[in-house]
Amino acid sequence: MQRIKLTVAYDGTNYAGWQIQKNALAIEEVLNKAISDLTGEDIVVIGASRTDSGVHALGNVAVFDTESRIPGEKFSYALNQRLPQDIKIVDSKTVEPDFHPRYCDTRKIYRYDIFNRKFENPLLRLYSHFVYYDIDIEKMKKAAKYLVGEHDFKSFCTPKTQVESTVRTIYRIDISKTGDMISVEIEGNGFLYNMVRIIVGTLLKVGMNFYPPEYVLEILEAKDRGKAGPKAPAKGLTLVEIIYE
Amino acid sequence: MQRIKLTVAYDGTNYAGWQIQKNALAIEEVLNKAISDLTGEDIVVIGASRTDSGVHALGNVAVFDTESRIPGEKFSYALNQRLPQDIKIVDSKTVEPDFHPRYCDTRKIYRYDIFNRKFENPLLRLYSHFVYYDIDIEKMKKAAKYLVGEHDFKSFCTPKTQVESTVRTIYRIDISKTGDMISVEIEGNGFLYNMVRIIVGTLLKVGMNFYPPEYVLEILEAKDRGKAGPKAPAKGLTLVEIIYE
Repeated sequence: MQRIKLTVAYDGTNYAGWQIQKNALAIEEVLNKAISDLTGEDIVVIGASRTDSGVHALGNVAVFDTESRIPGEKFSYALNQRLPQDIKIVDSKTVEPDFHPRYCDTRKIYRYDIFNRKFENPLLRLYSHFVYYDIDIEKMKKAAKYLVGEHDFKSFCTPKTQVESTVRTIYRIDISKTGDMISVEIEGNGFLYNMVRIIVGTLLKVGMNFYPPEYVLEILEAKDRGKAGPKAPAKGLTLVEIIYE
Repeated sequence: MQRIKLTVAYDGTNYAGWQIQKNALAIEEVLNKAISDLTGEDIVVIGASRTDSGVHALGNVAVFDTESRIPGEKFSYALNQRLPQDIKIVDSKTVEPDFHPRYCDTRKIYRYDIFNRKFENPLLRLYSHFVYYDIDIEKMKKAAKYLVGEHDFKSFCTPKTQVESTVRTIYRIDISKTGDMISVEIEGNGFLYNMVRIIVGTLLKVGMNFYPPEYVLEILEAKDRGKAGPKAPAKGLTLVEIIYE
């Protein structure tokens, strides 16, 4: 028996998200089927991050156990033959039998792309959020500084399932602009449900002068989802990498 | 009566190309319908470039005459409400009544994107050509130099319709690499059928060491399509801009 770790990239546009759903196709489901077809076993992967419908990934992680003797690093090639064009394995390897993709110390990197111009670009529509209004990224940067560090992010979380604690650490928020594309890259030790999208929605409100940058402090202190900005659309979000310490 | 010039951006993935086809949806058709719905007239646009199925555009040009009193610059906003997400007007204006998008001195800029890595990236699959093999872009640059200038490009043209002359001028071919993406930008006074894709297919053969860079001279001199490399896939090609002198 060996435990295999896959690094998975996908275009979330046509999926109901990572986790198996009743009436819509999930990424997890497509992976399970491809691996089961390859090994002849009945495989169910364990995913590191249950990305929402429409969210993309360059480096989500999935783990499974198999009796197959295919070497760990060969799984990527073999699976890519069986996977659709919008889901690809970018790396595969054998890991320790006790490696679990969620119960480990990790850092996650997300990127949110905002296309800020007067007219949409059809070639970027699936992977960025189009904003017509002027955005002041210097104000966004100022607001983002208040979020870096260890905080209770209760105001930046959609209350869905019970979590023990809403305290998380954000290591950095880098905001940059290349041409008409504004990218917000966030690295943290874990993220609450919809946390990145609510942070970006809030930073956008600051960039468009609806809130002053300092208002972010007030939102943090309130510990109230109602205080923060709206959730930015899923299609602008990409899970870039999960780093296992 | 006024003549309106539209600058059109589109994702060619789901279309049979610019020109109206019998059993598949063309970009021209979608535009005609949107403009006819808006003005209440029976509008047929004249396009500058009949891009192939799967080819993208950031700046194709279409022209039509209308009795509508909508100011030229307002057509973009009004049409974007009626167009699908994968076709957008990025500029509109009133032009001289004798302006014709094809019978003018123009320079056209095309970009071809090649994603060169060991594993595909699902987020780039629709807008670039994936190449697994190592590519030497210095060799491609050397080969490209032979193509710049006025030449008979008969070897780089799919013989489809009769053209009076296969002589064209290429002003520049810029090849650059950003991360894993190789971009080939070509500017010329006009392009023969499939010319950009055959040029890129040939340059790729050079970059992968199938031909020495100098072989491009031999291909030019042969005036024989059979000598050149294969046509690179449509999805990597974008018509970036048409410049009217």
